[in-house]
Amino acid sequence: MRFSKVYKQIVLDNSFKNWKNLLAYYFQISKAHLLMLARTEIVPKSLAKEIAQAFADLENEKIGEILPEDVEDLVFLIERKLSEKIGVEKAGFLHIARSRNDIDATIFRMCVREELIEVAEELIDLVEKLSEKAGQNVRTVLLMYTHGQPAQPSSFAHYLLSLAFDLLEVLEALLLTLRVVNACPMGSAAITTSGFKIDRKIVSDYLGFLEPVENSYRAIVTSHWISMPIGCLKVLACDLSRFAQDILHRASCEVGIFDFPDELVQISSIMPQKRNPVILEHLRIRSSVSFGLFNAVENAFLNTPYQDVNENGDLVLSKFLGGVDVLKQALQLTKEIVEKIVVDESRVKELALVTGSTTTELADFLVREFKISFRQAHEVVSEYVKSGMSYDSLVERFERLTGKKFTLTPDQVAEVLLVDNFVRVRQVMGGPGERSIEQMIRTLGTRLKSCKQNIDSMKHFLRQSLQKMQADFISLVLNR
Amino acid sequence: MRFSKVYKQIVLDNSFKNWKNLLAYYFQISKAHLLMLARTEIVPKSLAKEIAQAFADLENEKIGEILPEDVEDLVFLIERKLSEKIGVEKAGFLHIARSRNDIDATIFRMCVREELIEVAEELIDLVEKLSEKAGQNVRTVLLMYTHGQPAQPSSFAHYLLSLAFDLLEVLEALLLTLRVVNACPMGSAAITTSGFKIDRKIVSDYLGFLEPVENSYRAIVTSHWISMPIGCLKVLACDLSRFAQDILHRASCEVGIFDFPDELVQISSIMPQKRNPVILEHLRIRSSVSFGLFNAVENAFLNTPYQDVNENGDLVLSKFLGGVDVLKQALQLTKEIVEKIVVDESRVKELALVTGSTTTELADFLVREFKISFRQAHEVVSEYVKSGMSYDSLVERFERLTGKKFTLTPDQVAEVLLVDNFVRVRQVMGGPGERSIEQMIRTLGTRLKSCKQNIDSMKHFLRQSLQKMQADFISLVLNR
Amino acid sequence: MRFSKVYKQIVLDNSFKNWKNLLAYYFQISKAHLLMLARTEIVPKSLAKEIAQAFADLENEKIGEILPEDVEDLVFLIERKLSEKIGVEKAGFLHIARSRNDIDATIFRMCVREELIEVAEELIDLVEKLSEKAGQNVRTVLLMYTHGQPAQPSSFAHYLLSLAFDLLEVLEALLLTLRVVNACPMGSAAITTSGFKIDRKIVSDYLGFLEPVENSYRAIVTSHWISMPIGCLKVLACDLSRFAQDILHRASCEVGIFDFPDELVQISSIMPQKRNPVILEHLRIRSSVSFGLFNAVENAFLNTPYQDVNENGDLVLSKFLGGVDVLKQALQLTKEIVEKIVVDESRVKELALVTGSTTTELADFLVREFKISFRQAHEVVSEYVKSGMSYDSLVERFERLTGKKFTLTPDQVAEVLLVDNFVRVRQVMGGPGERSIEQMIRTLGTRLKSCKQNIDSMKHFLRQSLQKMQADFISLVLNR
Amino acid sequence: MRFSKVYKQIVLDNSFKNWKNLLAYYFQISKAHLLMLARTEIVPKSLAKEIAQAFADLENEKIGEILPEDVEDLVFLIERKLSEKIGVEKAGFLHIARSRNDIDATIFRMCVREELIEVAEELIDLVEKLSEKAGQNVRTVLLMYTHGQPAQPSSFAHYLLSLAFDLLEVLEALLLTLRVVNACPMGSAAITTSGFKIDRKIVSDYLGFLEPVENSYRAIVTSHWISMPIGCLKVLACDLSRFAQDILHRASCEVGIFDFPDELVQISSIMPQKRNPVILEHLRIRSSVSFGLFNAVENAFLNTPYQDVNENGDLVLSKFLGGVDVLKQALQLTKEIVEKIVVDESRVKELALVTGSTTTELADFLVREFKISFRQAHEVVSEYVKSGMSYDSLVERFERLTGKKFTLTPDQVAEVLLVDNFVRVRQVMGGPGERSIEQMIRTLGTRLKSCKQNIDSMKHFLRQSLQKMQADFISLVLNR
Repeated sequence: MRFSKVYKQIVLDNSFKNWKNLLAYYFQISKAHLLMLARTEIVPKSLAKEIAQAFADLENEKIGEILPEDVEDLVFLIERKLSEKIGVEKAGFLHIARSRNDIDATIFRMCVREELIEVAEELIDLVEKLSEKAGQNVRTVLLMYTHGQPAQPSSFAHYLLSLAFDLLEVLEALLLTLRVVNACPMGSAAITTSGFKIDRKIVSDYLGFLEPVENSYRAIVTSHWISMPIGCLKVLACDLSRFAQDILHRASCEVGIFDFPDELVQISSIMPQKRNPVILEHLRIRSSVSFGLFNAVENAFLNTPYQDVNENGDLVLSKFLGGVDVLKQALQLTKEIVEKIVVDESRVKELALVTGSTTTELADFLVREFKISFRQAHEVVSEYVKSGMSYDSLVERFERLTGKKFTLTPDQVAEVLLVDNFVRVRQVMGGPGERSIEQMIRTLGTRLKSCKQNIDSMKHFLRQSLQKMQADFISLVLNR
Repeated sequence: MRFSKVYKQIVLDNSFKNWKNLLAYYFQISKAHLLMLARTEIVPKSLAKEIAQAFADLENEKIGEILPEDVEDLVFLIERKLSEKIGVEKAGFLHIARSRNDIDATIFRMCVREELIEVAEELIDLVEKLSEKAGQNVRTVLLMYTHGQPAQPSSFAHYLLSLAFDLLEVLEALLLTLRVVNACPMGSAAITTSGFKIDRKIVSDYLGFLEPVENSYRAIVTSHWISMPIGCLKVLACDLSRFAQDILHRASCEVGIFDFPDELVQISSIMPQKRNPVILEHLRIRSSVSFGLFNAVENAFLNTPYQDVNENGDLVLSKFLGGVDVLKQALQLTKEIVEKIVVDESRVKELALVTGSTTTELADFLVREFKISFRQAHEVVSEYVKSGMSYDSLVERFERLTGKKFTLTPDQVAEVLLVDNFVRVRQVMGGPGERSIEQMIRTLGTRLKSCKQNIDSMKHFLRQSLQKMQADFISLVLNR
Repeated sequence: MRFSKVYKQIVLDNSFKNWKNLLAYYFQISKAHLLMLARTEIVPKSLAKEIAQAFADLENEKIGEILPEDVEDLVFLIERKLSEKIGVEKAGFLHIARSRNDIDATIFRMCVREELIEVAEELIDLVEKLSEKAGQNVRTVLLMYTHGQPAQPSSFAHYLLSLAFDLLEVLEALLLTLRVVNACPMGSAAITTSGFKIDRKIVSDYLGFLEPVENSYRAIVTSHWISMPIGCLKVLACDLSRFAQDILHRASCEVGIFDFPDELVQISSIMPQKRNPVILEHLRIRSSVSFGLFNAVENAFLNTPYQDVNENGDLVLSKFLGGVDVLKQALQLTKEIVEKIVVDESRVKELALVTGSTTTELADFLVREFKISFRQAHEVVSEYVKSGMSYDSLVERFERLTGKKFTLTPDQVAEVLLVDNFVRVRQVMGGPGERSIEQMIRTLGTRLKSCKQNIDSMKHFLRQSLQKMQADFISLVLNR
Repeated sequence: MRFSKVYKQIVLDNSFKNWKNLLAYYFQISKAHLLMLARTEIVPKSLAKEIAQAFADLENEKIGEILPEDVEDLVFLIERKLSEKIGVEKAGFLHIARSRNDIDATIFRMCVREELIEVAEELIDLVEKLSEKAGQNVRTVLLMYTHGQPAQPSSFAHYLLSLAFDLLEVLEALLLTLRVVNACPMGSAAITTSGFKIDRKIVSDYLGFLEPVENSYRAIVTSHWISMPIGCLKVLACDLSRFAQDILHRASCEVGIFDFPDELVQISSIMPQKRNPVILEHLRIRSSVSFGLFNAVENAFLNTPYQDVNENGDLVLSKFLGGVDVLKQALQLTKEIVEKIVVDESRVKELALVTGSTTTELADFLVREFKISFRQAHEVVSEYVKSGMSYDSLVERFERLTGKKFTLTPDQVAEVLLVDNFVRVRQVMGGPGERSIEQMIRTLGTRLKSCKQNIDSMKHFLRQSLQKMQADFISLVLNR
């Protein structure tokens, strides 16, 4: 046997399984490379045609489930099958000026590119959903928390748009890392390019890349095609974990500001009263698990030499794909949560009052009304809160501290403290005021549209490129 | 005492120490906020002037080493000092429409912005150094490795430019995250903005930010100001660790392709013969330690609620600053390595021949010369290598496998195998050919120049903004 | 200058600062080594005496703040100072059969040993505090949660003991890793021991170690002295983060089961009503930050060669010490929380009833009383809960489903649902019953006592060893 | 439909797939629980028999591939199937005093226990292999490195035993964490145990656990059953990555101290000369990937509340199992490497001389021979090395520095510098001397034997327990 039994079983056979999912990319790359060899006349047209025909046959055949004992991997296996069809003296021309190093690197980038496009589309969907929901909840009051405690009332739209902007920021960053991913290593021919006069641009164009990775050493060495997107994806996973954790408290039965329909609630096998919106926990878990898988990938490159290493290989890639899969689940659960979550406004108002969350406005009002300083107003109102919101105490404290006459009636004070009033007077940019919210929805929409166009044109270019490649390939086969 | 002894000692006193390093930012923010309150006439001009004067005095006074027992933190301490000067009934106006939440968030962004600019400048320096060194080593041959084994010869310039492009890619990404950082939370007034008609744009402009963080909830909640840059910085740290690890092997006494002057070499206290270029190890350590510290920071946000949390606080920030400090050390060591490293070309050529690293070119040559397929040529040359590079074996194997006559003389074969020939014939884009290298240096230069302009204009705008703010502040003090 | 400016400044000077904190260990090791060289007659007694005298002088002198330009590190600096006193022809004998490799490795273990003992003592303290508090709260009812929702009532003691057992488990594991740490590398003399007939046991004993690290290569190569304790410390940090996160919800104003005194509560600078028990957040942050720092340390060793590497050095150690420092802060905050936290029992009972948390017992009761199956009883009670705990609905549902006559009165049902009843009937091992709690306190006490004896005897042995070493050293100086 | 489509598809259906692999444990637990309910007479014997019979039938039936729409999970599905057989009024008795919480927690511990036993057995195998190989290589000289540079010669056995002791230390720690894992949560009945007089010891014994997890809250809350083993497994993964990285350098073609047979070497698809022992890279990757997966698991618990959370669930568990799988692959590759690796002794001796790695011994020899201090000897020999090992320079330098007459002949100096001499004179404990090596092999053997007995008795007890359980269950079915 060519390889030790242990090595074959643990390394080669496992790798073969991973590679079978990447086979379609391999065929695309080989066709693009062959077309380039023909167009540059490195391989005579007639020979290229024969190889193309054999290749076309091969594409329709099944690759077996098992890697033969004397073959290292899928690439060698296909090359052998090609040789069986037309002889090594012809088939062997295909491998001019290319190497597994660059083929692998190109395949992985094609695969990651596809995954990132999917994540980006999921994100676009989610941001749209958040924006829509915000649009429907401009006037829905919500209690906002800091450090786990009720702080101030605002609108549900205000909250949703905050998350929307955070996710949009991730999306924009992701699109930029997609540019990093979207460059083509082919033509580096292991390391140093080739003495043959290949044209790297042709292959890159056929495969829908923006451009070749210029430096041919870097093409097979860099980890940026996977580590740069991971930077964004981890921020995304962390954001989602925070969203889950935040909702959990307010959806609890004691707080009860948020509610979910029964279809998102699980029961206990022993406790009859339990109604767990465990979808929130499952979101949290998926967030942290994908975060952890991405960590594992980026960590794998640490302290490896700045050479072509097998960390740039299928095992590490498979963990990345696992992370993306779990992250996409998290995005879908988030969408479901956003769609189905309901604010209990009467509970919001009740809590808002009980917890004194509108008293910041009372302090502000005193400043405006009586021209006292904010710190004084803050002290007066703090005492008022401590007194259990006693009007008399408010008057007494105010007059003692400021030496001024307190002229507001109890009703006027109560009005200032209304949740609706609190939200209404906040007309500043970025706050919960309706005009501010509408402005944010517009800003969000503009930036989101630009992201969508970006993704759409990338997809369009990719589809067109591959179609052109396939058309040229068929022309070659048919000798047109 | 106001706080429990343990709480004061562990939380408040430690926090106070961290905050003293952030004091300058606090003063800048307060001045900008006061100017805005005056310009919008929320605070009458004359009152604003009094506060400004007191503030100007305060800025020149020393803050004590110890946090008084009844004060929570530095912000309250300064406010108290201000009240002691002009009375709370005046001083207390300063805190209108602002909160520690937004002050903190703004300070942290100003601090991170400054650090990132420094890292970016270190990076620019390093990429320039790499480019220069590449320019000096266009013809210096170097042996390139894959999977720890000599693979093909190339030029030292080719290698240096690979790293240069990787670092440039990080730099470009970092500049984009700087845009994320460079937005101003002020005006969110804890969460929901304010009922006062503040102008958030004024404060943002004075402090040199690109714009306010529009959504006021997001302004105090998001972790992107720290987690997004971390995504880039970790890629950078990982790249540097890989560079160190790669050089280590080739600088070893057995390989000896790279050499360092004595000033970078340490001795052993017991083994007389040792000469360790431990600077490489120290680079590796600094890379992985900064990587680890950044990990710690990004991890701290996982599973925290999507609210204002103290993870957005000074303790976590201090670990980030620690990571940046170690990373800057790593960048400086890398620059030193790049500057001082020397290639031993004769050793390169010796090893290149002994290891058969140029035989890829022989195979390519056979393809071109005899029109045989690459796979056949590869097999012929593999046998040749196994035979210990015996010319007779080459002829025999060639003729048996291809059925053709082998017409090259031993001298011709030797010439094909020359290192210089290997490099010279590789004229393809991105390879080691001189024109290709020059092209890469140009590309690099163009993109680097754009980064420099970006940073320079950011610094210029920042400096101008703060100068304008200071000028306006002095005008206010002097009532001009 | 001996070293490059950059290298000296970044590597050597920073290292020198770290090493000054380790100086005392260096003196102890040198004395122990010298005594061994004298006892084994490798160095003649009279010469050893002279060295000892110079060394004793040196110990009282100040090491300057700055590393001289021509010296690599503190160890060489001290050796030089020794040579200045008695000449290199005498001083130079001290370094027989030892190397910086083994000195460093020994110093680091002594330092880590001391830190771990301190953490262990903090842990012992905390577990004792938990046990005491449990003893005081055997009958204090508490509501227990799963998946963020109220689930069943229990006693506060039950909850506290759960955490106590978890921390005890960490403590026991930590003591076992202390055995790993507590072995002495001295005598490995860089790698292979020495041709001199040294006695490694003597040095190990003097320094209070359990034994030498037998394999001399392993003595300078292994990372277990730091990575093994980290395994435990991370579990501890994670446990504390979970405790903080758990209490946060129940201490929130809406739930209000837990309360804290004012001395642990911070206010808002803008929101008058806020009372944040931010000590919980500060515990969470310290937990995750120490977790992250330990991560950074353990990660630094990944993919480094299995040799003596500088990852086993002062920079990585300093991050470990930073992690321990933050973790000790977390332990102290936890102790403070445990000491000061108060259960609001009336709120517990109110919530327990409202949320139906005792209805599991009603289902159980129906099983026992009417011999129906648990699943049937669960269904009956689920309906009862859904009906808003209507007695009529209970009767109707029970009779329809089981075909049996429901014979309990409303009062009897109410009694079954009492919180006190729920807790009282749970007499099984490990549950909230008083006998069960007392048994747990006893088990805990026994295991804790054994841990304390372990630590105490380790400390005792350490103190005695160092005292004996110092006594022998003084005898040598005085030639007794 | 009971659940939302998204929730069912992403959460429930995925979970169902994971659970099908855990089904056998569920049956074992249910049988043990039923037997306990019968033995304690909580369920009448005759009823227990009926349930047992239905259960026995069920065990032989196939669970479908798809989770029905109205069922939450596998546990409910099986309970329903049981009810379909004998009616809910009988089947429903099985769930007395148990909950999914405790069933899950018990299943996960049974699963982790099995995996850890397998890892422990792999480790035992590997340590034995290392010990054997050491026994065969007591006299095989090897060059040892520090900081990437040749340092001193030693024996291959010395090196192998270092790794063996490190792995043994992990093994011993792992066995201790197995004690933590090996405790039974059953009987906690969600949280607080039960009002039924269950006997937790019976169930624990039947399932082969050492004891119940005493505190019933902790039984369902703690993460130690997975986070404690992970502490050890990560140390192991890191050790293996270091071993791989260390061998890589010395197996490189330039160093050539280590060699591998062809069956472990891969070729290049383009470079004819390449021979990559990529098994080392694949070991490194598997080490860091498993390290990363374990990281992900331990990280998932950070900042989750100290309650029963779904992080203690099948998704996180599946990542742990993935990590164990990759780690077992790493262990098998390591065994293969240890078995097949060969030292090239002549190359060792060549390098040892060329690099002056034996000159420490020359310095030591000068100390012994001429009674000069080590530092003086070190300086003399350093000069000698710098002079290119010129005898004349040695004499001159020695006499000038010490003022003594140098009396050794060139032959005598050469003899002192022999590799064999270097190793032979090092007779100290833990060094490369034969007696020392034999002693280490004995120590290792004793400790390893104790580990094996530990594992064997654990496995024996486990097998016996389950057999007894099965026998009692059959007796119940057959009413014996």
